[in-house]
Amino acid sequence: MIYETVVTTMNPDGTVHIAPMGIRVENRKYLISPFKPSKTFDNLVNSGAAVINATDEVMIFAGCLTGRENWPTVSAERVDCERLAGAAAHIEVRVERREDDELRPVFTCRSVNIVAHAPFKGFNRAQAAVIEAAILVSRLHLLPEEKIRSELKYLNNAIEKTAGEKEKTAWQWLLEKVEDYYNNAALASGRNS
Amino acid sequence: MIYETVVTTMNPDGTVHIAPMGIRVENRKYLISPFKPSKTFDNLVNSGAAVINATDEVMIFAGCLTGRENWPTVSAERVDCERLAGAAAHIEVRVERREDDELRPVFTCRSVNIVAHAPFKGFNRAQAAVIEAAILVSRLHLLPEEKIRSELKYLNNAIEKTAGEKEKTAWQWLLEKVEDYYNNAALASGRNS
Repeated sequence: MIYETVVTTMNPDGTVHIAPMGIRVENRKYLISPFKPSKTFDNLVNSGAAVINATDEVMIFAGCLTGRENWPTVSAERVDCERLAGAAAHIEVRVERREDDELRPVFTCRSVNIVAHAPFKGFNRAQAAVIEAAILVSRLHLLPEEKIRSELKYLNNAIEKTAGEKEKTAWQWLLEKVEDYYNNAALASGRNS
Repeated sequence: MIYETVVTTMNPDGTVHIAPMGIRVENRKYLISPFKPSKTFDNLVNSGAAVINATDEVMIFAGCLTGRENWPTVSAERVDCERLAGAAAHIEVRVERREDDELRPVFTCRSVNIVAHAPFKGFNRAQAAVIEAAILVSRLHLLPEEKIRSELKYLNNAIEKTAGEKEKTAWQWLLEKVEDYYNNAALASGRNS
């Protein structure tokens, strides 16, 4: 199983780094695979600890992909790290071992503390659509524009039918990022021609 | 906001009726809109109570759409109703008023008890894909086959990349239902020709 979560780690200067990330759960271990290079990779190596935040606040996922990386955090309980203040649940983990890889090393972690903060409310289709769109936005440079646009159009149905205000805002941030990306690509191609 | 949940209500004979349903949350009220006629409609009228189960067990959603309606339940705490034993959280509600409608009446309900049973684990894309597919399966008679098949193909990506065993089983049940539907449609059309 892979869960889309928000991983928080501590930077060497004592500030927190917030990164949406898919976490693999296997035999009660949590596998974190940050890209290399990345702050999450450096911080996991340096501190050996992280918090996996299970949050349904999709503005945080969309925000981190669109230059809005400042979200409220509070101290974790058993590891020297911060967690998202608004997490529905969080898992404090320590790194047990690292499997190196040029692109995506795997940190196998064990949980030292799991805390629930708010009850699960059920599936919201708009939240799932924002998560899918966030993944598309993280792959703009890898996917053809036509595929991006047709998938966004499909996902937009769930936004229109089931979104609350937060989901609509998150969706808007992602759409703006997509337009900026293609406008800049068009400008660059104009300059080159 | 609309949340995809599983609503449990009591049949007049004391057995429980289990139905996946999208619940609208507005001003702290829970709006349940069962189709008419349906057991959920009858039971809400008769008993004035229900449980809204927030569960990430997508086999229950897929199961109820494919003739597998027997899932473990236990007694609710403050209303005379059963809840899903495996719910991550559940909300016990009483009907405050009913807005009638020929097709989809709206029951406005207030919660009398909210209980969390398991922490939120984060978004799983395969679970969201099963929910989308379950909605498609509930609309097989309304949508063109081409649309159903192309959306299932798209959703299959998330199943392949992020599903656990339960999500794979739920997905399989839904695919079988789709094939059965079109095979029967083909047979019927053969008989008619």
